[in-house]
Amino acid sequence: MDVPLKFCSHCGAAVVTKVPPGDHLPRFVCDACGTVHYKNPLLVLGCVPEWEGRILLCRRAIEPRLGFWTVPAGFMEIGETMQHAARRECHEEAQAEVEIGSLLAVVSVTHAAQVHVMFRASMLTPRYAAGPESLEVRLVEEREIPWEDLAFPSGEFTLRRYFEDRAAGRETHHFTELQHPLKR
Amino acid sequence: MDVPLKFCSHCGAAVVTKVPPGDHLPRFVCDACGTVHYKNPLLVLGCVPEWEGRILLCRRAIEPRLGFWTVPAGFMEIGETMQHAARRECHEEAQAEVEIGSLLAVVSVTHAAQVHVMFRASMLTPRYAAGPESLEVRLVEEREIPWEDLAFPSGEFTLRRYFEDRAAGRETHHFTELQHPLKR
Repeated sequence: MDVPLKFCSHCGAAVVTKVPPGDHLPRFVCDACGTVHYKNPLLVLGCVPEWEGRILLCRRAIEPRLGFWTVPAGFMEIGETMQHAARRECHEEAQAEVEIGSLLAVVSVTHAAQVHVMFRASMLTPRYAAGPESLEVRLVEEREIPWEDLAFPSGEFTLRRYFEDRAAGRETHHFTELQHPLKR
Repeated sequence: MDVPLKFCSHCGAAVVTKVPPGDHLPRFVCDACGTVHYKNPLLVLGCVPEWEGRILLCRRAIEPRLGFWTVPAGFMEIGETMQHAARRECHEEAQAEVEIGSLLAVVSVTHAAQVHVMFRASMLTPRYAAGPESLEVRLVEEREIPWEDLAFPSGEFTLRRYFEDRAAGRETHHFTELQHPLKR
């Protein structure tokens, strides 16, 4: 997602970086055709799928963080709602069918220009399998969560709040900001 | 935001539309340098600023919907959280300082490839004024809301839920999808 913007995608001319009239931030601007190319944060949608008290985790088959564990999540596509995207990602990565439930976590990952939105979810059947982006998928108890081998801090935040809320018998939502990539 | 993607912003070559290996949707792909150019939904952040029971509305000085009324809202920028973006937009459009409160509405505007996220907000002072993108700004009672002259359906959804919740003495959040542009 961090490909530098050098040429105008509309006319092919070289772009410059400057503050357009009436704006307050530098943008990628094409002086040839006048197009302003904005860059904005992207939405990553995911869920915590539950079946009889256990939750579904995927071990990543792709970079970044290949081999580490994550809740099913990925970039929202055009034409989807947030809930559609969360359900689709669960289907793709864990081959599991879920009903999306309440909002759980909103994580502004400012250093990566992303917002991660996570929902609770109920698995409709106990069937699951590794999709093409997963090495393996497991249905685990809370005590089996591989906290040290989670792929992303947003996933850890999501799972911590999930189990806290579940223990307290509530379904609330939680905001946080992650400003720096983890040192690993 | 709907500028057609014809040229590679990385190398300037013409792009083609095709499904990349391992993907399932057509993307803009540069065969010259191999870059895949994704298009994803954008986040629009806004709030309903309140002062002593009245709420703050802006009349738009820019297209689309010039001359119509809206809650302060706009595209989220890189480096911001959702709450930062909502507060900044309120400052820019209504010159008002607010504390962002609870989540109010999440509107998937699928036809426009946007997600509008709206918060409740408390004005810190009764000061406000039209920013460069507003013709005028008003602090209005519920009975004064110009329902017929609102700029966007997401704003109407936001305000309806806001007053319903306030009348019921609760602060909940609401999801909806807007699939079609309004015929006007």
